[in-house]
Amino acid sequence: MKNFFVLTLFPEMIQETLSHSILGRAQREGFVSIEAINIREFSNNKHLQVDDYPYGGGAGMVMQPQPIYDAYQSIVPRAGKARVLYMTPQGKPFTQCMAKKLAQEENLVFLCGHYEGVDERVIEEIVTDEVSLGDFVLTGGELAAITMIDAISRLMPGVLGKEASFEEESFSEGLLEYPQYTRPPIFMEREVPPILLSGHHGNIEKWRREQSLLRTASKRPDLLKKAELSKKDLETLQKNDIEP
Amino acid sequence: MKNFFVLTLFPEMIQETLSHSILGRAQREGFVSIEAINIREFSNNKHLQVDDYPYGGGAGMVMQPQPIYDAYQSIVPRAGKARVLYMTPQGKPFTQCMAKKLAQEENLVFLCGHYEGVDERVIEEIVTDEVSLGDFVLTGGELAAITMIDAISRLMPGVLGKEASFEEESFSEGLLEYPQYTRPPIFMEREVPPILLSGHHGNIEKWRREQSLLRTASKRPDLLKKAELSKKDLETLQKNDIEP
Repeated sequence: MKNFFVLTLFPEMIQETLSHSILGRAQREGFVSIEAINIREFSNNKHLQVDDYPYGGGAGMVMQPQPIYDAYQSIVPRAGKARVLYMTPQGKPFTQCMAKKLAQEENLVFLCGHYEGVDERVIEEIVTDEVSLGDFVLTGGELAAITMIDAISRLMPGVLGKEASFEEESFSEGLLEYPQYTRPPIFMEREVPPILLSGHHGNIEKWRREQSLLRTASKRPDLLKKAELSKKDLETLQKNDIEP
Repeated sequence: MKNFFVLTLFPEMIQETLSHSILGRAQREGFVSIEAINIREFSNNKHLQVDDYPYGGGAGMVMQPQPIYDAYQSIVPRAGKARVLYMTPQGKPFTQCMAKKLAQEENLVFLCGHYEGVDERVIEEIVTDEVSLGDFVLTGGELAAITMIDAISRLMPGVLGKEASFEEESFSEGLLEYPQYTRPPIFMEREVPPILLSGHHGNIEKWRREQSLLRTASKRPDLLKKAELSKKDLETLQKNDIEP
């Protein structure tokens, strides 16, 4: 079982969001545990204030170091020397490769900032990894943490119903997924590609691999450059006048 | 007012998650409207099934085109010719620049897939943009949609309490943000940089710009290459032996 601890000012947001769908079931069935710790409860201020004006001036408020530090200390007995991930656009970009590495950890701590940011000193004191969900700005770190928890959890045994089903997906082999079709055979005058109805598994496999290659080449050539390609893949690309 | 429509199998997840914090307030105050449309309600199957086995075989289930198409049709009278964003790792990577462009639109539709994917034909039929939150795989498109709605909404007038406060943030000028400090002046034996307590605004500005430059150079050199740098910035980098 994997334990996620999330240090946040919006614990209900973490808990409600992750109570749905696959992650909700994974928690109920005991595959993962997700605990949100309310930083505000660790304010030592009678107004439960957790932020203050930035030294040196500027817009917005900065989260104070003490409540975050004390919230973190409260979980150390359970989380041990777990990695502490701070959600920030300044961090290392989150990728499927990072998700796989983090899925190996038993405990993970996420620190979610709000307002203009977090006092630098508590980051220096407790954070082991600064991680970015992408090159965009959010109202807070919560959605980044929730998204990463989803991506990491689904790689763990038992979380997805069928063990097999994440194997074939995007990025598992560095290529984008082939197009999918289901019933009906004709929708809005569009037919399912006949090969998928042929029952010839060898040809279907070949067609799907080709589709993956061609899609990756047209939509994400950067991924194609990094992908592991077989001799057959290279032939397919050559036949379509695409340079790998 | 901006209207977001989200086509999803988990409408409560969308609504609950976005009811908190800044986005919750923005909705209550009428700056944005977020409506989740339950695709399942548009199943024409008595078991309310919305997925089926993939043609050609393979693990998992594929979302059928008809319920998605009908769910989309139900909002056309209100959403008009709005752009329809399909959340997929195959899409164009979501960035702050894309968020700014999407913030100009009056209506936006998000299509969230689940299971192994969505029948390709309904994507061809209704989707205008395939967008990816990043190079990782999620259990569904909901968290990607929620995250993008957050990033887009906060750029709209009135959503952030103080208009000024998003101006200075990461990516606004292509550089990472400078470190922030607030009270107390000493935390865990770590002092606030004395310059921030000096009251000399010119020097503080200069120090912050330098910190932004040095951080970007060390953490995200790729961003530094694309940033707009002044002559003074170039001097700062040179002084620190950093090539822009």
